[in-house]
Amino acid sequence: MAENRQILLASMPRGPLELSHFEACEGPIPKPGDGEVLCRNLALTIGAGQRAALQSSKGYGGAPQIATPMQGSTIARVEASNDPGFSPGDHVWGSLGWQDYSVAAGGELTKVDAKADPALYLGVLGTNGLTAYVGLLDIGAPKPGETVVVSAAAGSVGHVVGQIARIKGCKVVGTAGSDEKCHMLTKELGFDAAVNYKSEDFRTQFKGATPERIDVYFDNTGGDVLGSALFRMNQGGRIVCCGVVSQYDTATPGPGPAGIPGLLVTFSVRMEGFIVFNHQDRFAAARDDLLGWIQSGELKPLVCEYARLEEAPQAFIDMLAGRTTGTTIVRIA
Amino acid sequence: MAENRQILLASMPRGPLELSHFEACEGPIPKPGDGEVLCRNLALTIGAGQRAALQSSKGYGGAPQIATPMQGSTIARVEASNDPGFSPGDHVWGSLGWQDYSVAAGGELTKVDAKADPALYLGVLGTNGLTAYVGLLDIGAPKPGETVVVSAAAGSVGHVVGQIARIKGCKVVGTAGSDEKCHMLTKELGFDAAVNYKSEDFRTQFKGATPERIDVYFDNTGGDVLGSALFRMNQGGRIVCCGVVSQYDTATPGPGPAGIPGLLVTFSVRMEGFIVFNHQDRFAAARDDLLGWIQSGELKPLVCEYARLEEAPQAFIDMLAGRTTGTTIVRIA
Repeated sequence: MAENRQILLASMPRGPLELSHFEACEGPIPKPGDGEVLCRNLALTIGAGQRAALQSSKGYGGAPQIATPMQGSTIARVEASNDPGFSPGDHVWGSLGWQDYSVAAGGELTKVDAKADPALYLGVLGTNGLTAYVGLLDIGAPKPGETVVVSAAAGSVGHVVGQIARIKGCKVVGTAGSDEKCHMLTKELGFDAAVNYKSEDFRTQFKGATPERIDVYFDNTGGDVLGSALFRMNQGGRIVCCGVVSQYDTATPGPGPAGIPGLLVTFSVRMEGFIVFNHQDRFAAARDDLLGWIQSGELKPLVCEYARLEEAPQAFIDMLAGRTTGTTIVRIA
Repeated sequence: MAENRQILLASMPRGPLELSHFEACEGPIPKPGDGEVLCRNLALTIGAGQRAALQSSKGYGGAPQIATPMQGSTIARVEASNDPGFSPGDHVWGSLGWQDYSVAAGGELTKVDAKADPALYLGVLGTNGLTAYVGLLDIGAPKPGETVVVSAAAGSVGHVVGQIARIKGCKVVGTAGSDEKCHMLTKELGFDAAVNYKSEDFRTQFKGATPERIDVYFDNTGGDVLGSALFRMNQGGRIVCCGVVSQYDTATPGPGPAGIPGLLVTFSVRMEGFIVFNHQDRFAAARDDLLGWIQSGELKPLVCEYARLEEAPQAFIDMLAGRTTGTTIVRIA
């Protein structure tokens, strides 16, 4: 009889994430109770926010528990259902964790197109794409012709942010951690410019790439890129605070950016954080737009795939180290 | 014949402001040209933003020039006018600097009630009060019952912010630099609580004074109070960035607040800077409300007065050192 592979959180990281923070095990396949659905995970996605969740027991993405399966978004196939809203063979989106099988209440699952590649609903039509859409359009509110800068621009959220900004008629500048990524952003995704934040003359290059300064800065990183962007904002500019990946995978977070709050006053800048799950009323419209842009060829999803559940910890480490581009997906079945 | 006393900016401060950064001189009374008005200053006001202007040659409050009269808001009496909109005896509000006499184009002057004390139009009905009104109500957008915290609460802007918040039905907490100021805030101005930021156990007291956490933080200081407030924000809270007085009078500004941008994400906080002169469309409504609250006794203006133009540099130094409360006014005539 089939066993249920699981990747458990073995310990809470206090510095950079390592394989030893995880542990593989096998257990029985759970049985669905009343109103519950038995789900067989097909793929999972890993985002930087999951590393943030490992820093804190509250406030961001729920509280991770030692010796339980690592949490995370998945696409699963329904195997058995005691909820009349779901039937075997349905595909669902849920937070079902790093494991083969799980049971969930029907209300925790969202049905998705079973004919679509799970990577689509984990990537551009999943949390990453919705985060990009809500953050850029609702919080950043860019106008055509404005300059939009996005950090971690080759990442799961960033590559969608930049393309939506382009579709909306903005000038788009990205930052990323390698020349290869920068080349890809301008050649394949239509960015107007891209700057490698690891360059020795980053600030000079960044200034050169934003000749009309910055109207919307979509911040996935914090750190030096945020520090640089603050000095390039236009009057009335907006900084969308989405994540702080420069600070997640470390035991010693850096100081806050110099110039805050002074530069916010000088340039009348609005800096606003958000969590995508507080904007669920926008998800349907966002998915319609995102799917339309994919079908028209205007929006190109990038996916970095790993083939087996056991590779999830390495995929997480690679993503945090900047060795992946686009949405990081681990295939499970 | 009368001479024109002037206080010139002798040098740009690179550290704490000193009397030696200013120089008194006398010159001829200027003559108004076509369309110009000869103004006799009656009083000036000094705000922390003027120290900020001495840090930078652009972007905040205009560019100060060495060996010219120190800039600043004044109330003046019209002595002679080549603009048909103004007559001798009118009282006007303008940026006429630290001197007895000046000429200005009519368009640079705003007529005010000649029967009112100049301190009223330099304080609560001037830039300070307008800053408090626009910043709190338009940027902070507090709702009745919410907790509003204001730093430098006994200062020119802060004492108005706190009182408007109280009038709007909010719980109001102020921070100030002495126990005497804190006592005044709660006993005389109706604050619900006030905390001395110089207390050894400031963070503990601050936490105790905000049991329902913070919905709107009106930041006049930056520094430690901002750093503390960031950790006490409610979901969806707003931080109004008005000034950074903790950083103005120094050669070595501190680092930015730790927790930015991470806490903005975690708590979905909006942090927004503004400059009052970009909100002139609100000035008429603001003055109507402010005057109404003064007349009804709900809003109590605080003024700290100096009697002679020559005292303006000392008044500036005293204000930056926290030795004044409310609006700092220097009488000129």
